[in-house]
Amino acid sequence: MEGYKVIEVKESVFASNDREAEKLRNDLKERGVFLINLMSSPGSGKTTTLKRTIADLSNEMKIGVMEADIDSDVDAAAIEKTGAKVIQVHTGGMCHLDAGMTRQGLESMGTENLDLVFLENVGNLVCPAEFDTGASKNVMILSVPEGHDKPLKYPLMFQVCDVLLVNKIDVLPYFDFDMDACRKYAQERNPNIKIIPISARTGEGMEEWENWLREEVRACK
Amino acid sequence: MEGYKVIEVKESVFASNDREAEKLRNDLKERGVFLINLMSSPGSGKTTTLKRTIADLSNEMKIGVMEADIDSDVDAAAIEKTGAKVIQVHTGGMCHLDAGMTRQGLESMGTENLDLVFLENVGNLVCPAEFDTGASKNVMILSVPEGHDKPLKYPLMFQVCDVLLVNKIDVLPYFDFDMDACRKYAQERNPNIKIIPISARTGEGMEEWENWLREEVRACK
Repeated sequence: MEGYKVIEVKESVFASNDREAEKLRNDLKERGVFLINLMSSPGSGKTTTLKRTIADLSNEMKIGVMEADIDSDVDAAAIEKTGAKVIQVHTGGMCHLDAGMTRQGLESMGTENLDLVFLENVGNLVCPAEFDTGASKNVMILSVPEGHDKPLKYPLMFQVCDVLLVNKIDVLPYFDFDMDACRKYAQERNPNIKIIPISARTGEGMEEWENWLREEVRACK
Repeated sequence: MEGYKVIEVKESVFASNDREAEKLRNDLKERGVFLINLMSSPGSGKTTTLKRTIADLSNEMKIGVMEADIDSDVDAAAIEKTGAKVIQVHTGGMCHLDAGMTRQGLESMGTENLDLVFLENVGNLVCPAEFDTGASKNVMILSVPEGHDKPLKYPLMFQVCDVLLVNKIDVLPYFDFDMDACRKYAQERNPNIKIIPISARTGEGMEEWENWLREEVRACK
């Protein structure tokens, strides 16, 4: 039997999600917990990126993961093997998480002694961008096979993210992906976005990403 | 200057989307127009698949394309080069199309003399599955880099689709994609789903897909 909880979260009743998000962000800051809202299309490599990140950082900090999905717990099962604290959150068909749902997940998982928590949001480039979850920072993954034109088509996602991980760079030779165009389009949407090309499979580029995480977690204490 | 229209569609005011969808489906049947609602994640290859399909079928039938996006008209510009009739539909941030929005697009494009119309929905595996657009059939694309576990995580999309195109099979050697598992998971969600592996880039598998289209368009007359 799996060792992680599976919970159903309900859409919030709060009138103002922005206010609830701000409250959650402050609560987490007081507790010294750094929460990342990780967003992407389906299949961009969120879980694979988390697995490698946890393997690389777990001897330096305590990490928790909330896996949000409409259905299934394949991601929680994959993350559990890393030894990180994990909970599977089912959204009951909802296409995104809001701050109230995020709080339900955090309370059910428990954040005692955790330094870094990842919320793996539902795979979707549209709706999750519209809802502040209360996370300390928003991070998105765009994978090479999806194409470099995505910042043109899903502008809000690129606007709300602090970091863009361009994943699956190991398969660049097999796709017509223009990294310079991708950088240009993303920066047009968000001049402050930090862009880090990675391959979660081979490990290329992971050090820059993990150094960014180390600094943010340290600053949060 | 581009030769295609760009229109903004508004969310419908109709109480019952299902009723509006049924009405639109009947109207199209009377006019002998076969409408396909094409759905997928961002970057699965909807536009590339359409470009090749149009190139292969345009001497047999008249084809129109409605490109739905939150922003940009890169897809309409790409489709225009094929010679098909095309319109770019902007959803004003909306993550899906409903039947009313689809009707607005069709009326703005004009369906006179068209045999086959593709609605390229917003790239999203969640929300578009929840709204009947009034299309004759629903078709989805899952691309190899996204992984074979997607039917487990986005069940409704696989349930509502008549055809599943598994695209980018030319890059199968570079990814851990299990076609048998994909078939099994998809058929568990929808025993009637027709699964066609294709590569829109190399043309592999396109004949089976195009033969299915030929038959459906013929049956619609």
